[in-house]
Amino acid sequence: MHTNTNKWGALHNNETNHPKVIKCKAAVAWEPNKPLVIEEIEVAPPQANEVRIKVVATAVCHTDLHHLLESMSKDGFPVVLGHEAAGIVESVGSGVTEFQPGDKVIPLFISQCGECRFCKSPKTNQCEKGWAATGHDVMASSNYRLTCKGKKILQFAGTSTFSEYTVVNQMAVAKIDPTAPLDKVCLLGCGVCTGYGAAVNTAKVEPGSTCAVFGLGAVGLAAVMGCKAAGAKKIIAVDINPEKFEKAKVFGATDFVNPKDHSKPISQVLSEMTNGGVDFSLECVGNVGVMRSALESCVQGWGVSVIVGWTNLEDCSTRPIQLIAGRTWKGSVFGGFKGKYGVPQLVEAYLDKKVKVDEFITHNMTLDQVNDAIELMKQGKCIRTVLHVSPQ
Amino acid sequence: MHTNTNKWGALHNNETNHPKVIKCKAAVAWEPNKPLVIEEIEVAPPQANEVRIKVVATAVCHTDLHHLLESMSKDGFPVVLGHEAAGIVESVGSGVTEFQPGDKVIPLFISQCGECRFCKSPKTNQCEKGWAATGHDVMASSNYRLTCKGKKILQFAGTSTFSEYTVVNQMAVAKIDPTAPLDKVCLLGCGVCTGYGAAVNTAKVEPGSTCAVFGLGAVGLAAVMGCKAAGAKKIIAVDINPEKFEKAKVFGATDFVNPKDHSKPISQVLSEMTNGGVDFSLECVGNVGVMRSALESCVQGWGVSVIVGWTNLEDCSTRPIQLIAGRTWKGSVFGGFKGKYGVPQLVEAYLDKKVKVDEFITHNMTLDQVNDAIELMKQGKCIRTVLHVSPQ
Repeated sequence: MHTNTNKWGALHNNETNHPKVIKCKAAVAWEPNKPLVIEEIEVAPPQANEVRIKVVATAVCHTDLHHLLESMSKDGFPVVLGHEAAGIVESVGSGVTEFQPGDKVIPLFISQCGECRFCKSPKTNQCEKGWAATGHDVMASSNYRLTCKGKKILQFAGTSTFSEYTVVNQMAVAKIDPTAPLDKVCLLGCGVCTGYGAAVNTAKVEPGSTCAVFGLGAVGLAAVMGCKAAGAKKIIAVDINPEKFEKAKVFGATDFVNPKDHSKPISQVLSEMTNGGVDFSLECVGNVGVMRSALESCVQGWGVSVIVGWTNLEDCSTRPIQLIAGRTWKGSVFGGFKGKYGVPQLVEAYLDKKVKVDEFITHNMTLDQVNDAIELMKQGKCIRTVLHVSPQ
Repeated sequence: MHTNTNKWGALHNNETNHPKVIKCKAAVAWEPNKPLVIEEIEVAPPQANEVRIKVVATAVCHTDLHHLLESMSKDGFPVVLGHEAAGIVESVGSGVTEFQPGDKVIPLFISQCGECRFCKSPKTNQCEKGWAATGHDVMASSNYRLTCKGKKILQFAGTSTFSEYTVVNQMAVAKIDPTAPLDKVCLLGCGVCTGYGAAVNTAKVEPGSTCAVFGLGAVGLAAVMGCKAAGAKKIIAVDINPEKFEKAKVFGATDFVNPKDHSKPISQVLSEMTNGGVDFSLECVGNVGVMRSALESCVQGWGVSVIVGWTNLEDCSTRPIQLIAGRTWKGSVFGGFKGKYGVPQLVEAYLDKKVKVDEFITHNMTLDQVNDAIELMKQGKCIRTVLHVSPQ
């Protein structure tokens, strides 16, 4: 199927010189809680303001699992999951001037239209146009370009990177350094930015401060790295799986707490370790009980707790006095980074060895092995598995 | 009983020239949910680092009612309530250099020792020494100086201003401009500072922003005034009692919403009025349902909601997505003001006509009428009643 291509893999109709439909391999989730199926799908040409991307590498993130395993309805299916990826622009639709075939890019599940009041505000990265669309698993333009066996396929988080090719709106793409190894920097498409930015941008961790990070998956480890980069002097890594502690040390954690080792509430344990509570806490699990513990582990007066983990099936709660006494409860998506600015900067930081990425990757597989990768994550046996989809 | 006094009313033992016990009138709360009783009490001389104050005027605040009506146990009784007051220093204990008899002062229910890590931080006003003590209704020094009929009387919030005289630790007193009318500026001892500061210091309301204030008691009205002082362009006053709206207008409210007029959730009503939600909201009721509404009325991305009202019998809750989507949930006590700095500044602002105080006062009574004042507040028929306790 990769015949008649230009040097970037673009398939052109010889008569009009317009890109044609690409038939390629993708992992389709036909219904909740079932294994993905490797299928041949059709990827339509990019329309106005859209970019078709050859996916080189994509990692598996908890949010993919969350959609697959915890969706309450079948409305979000069939879908191609995957949103933490890097690739190469194959072709562009009309009106696209920012990208051209051959550009190395990272798709953004939080778009940046640059024009809405959210994009224009320095306070948030939550583009108004993209937020509405990705919440319904279509592209930021509210369209879809993937089909399989005659059926429309939803694009998870507006991206759908468990596929050899995908189409995204240009507002949901960041151009990166052409020398970047895509099978590494794909992690900057979600998990690493999410955790690192939550510490640096959302919590605004301060030099000399005391931090606690709850949950030591990729996002939590990146949060540890963010705390260290911000100059925290004590970084307490909290997880019920003590096997994660060794890795957390690599990223800068100084202290380690397994809640299973204590009969007291974990907030009390941390309070006693820190003379009244930590300055900053980050919840990287997605559990409302842990969200409460993270908040209540903060010191009265100025403690800031950031919800990074994702769940929305239950309320998060606390006693009002916890907030009245001076604690702040916040959250963030994608670490507060505006993607088109933040992602290229983090790629540079990685190339300059100021940000670790390789250390998150515990497994490398192919797209065909996606269900194995999902299983590893379900069992907590990996930090990140990178699926090598196409040659760089 | 006011014989043998110096010009500030101090009673001295002629032989030692040390202050003696004062017998005076106070409103004693012997048990929960019963009327206060005007009794003759004994006010011991100030010990080291303590200040005995002749209370000139004290207002009745919801927090007094809260203690009287909602206390779950009898542990907090007998007690002299009252904490929003102004008076004149009558005598001082050893080691007190900041005050001398005759100084006009406002007692502080949040002390400022000046030495603890909280006092040294610009981020909080929650003095570590005072917080622990006032939570148990003793002075900031953890002592008591009031007795009645041979019984120890607790000092509510470390102050106890429903009394002709009281003793407080010097860390819980602010010296103010001697020209200030005490029967007005007494309101700066709690309600006005609490609401005004919550807007200015805690929410950090910005010029041109859109705000919502839930609950239009004295604290809510002061929050409206704070929003206006900070330059908010739209200030939505929310209350189920529309009689409060006229007063809210005086303090700067621009829009008025009675939740009873709407079948939709109030957060949706405000969202529709403001193109997605307000920039800042302040909960000045003390109800966990209102706390949730106030948070969820904020705009995604950067909305900040501050809990100002007090309740601690239930959890406050929301869906995690509300925070993940960029809202911030905070709270504050005494508007974030460090009392010794903030109160004198607000007194000056009042004297310079930059802050309104008189407009909060709807009733003036004597200490003997304290139960009538409490009844007015229970029925929502007043904003503030000032009890004139002693001549200025």
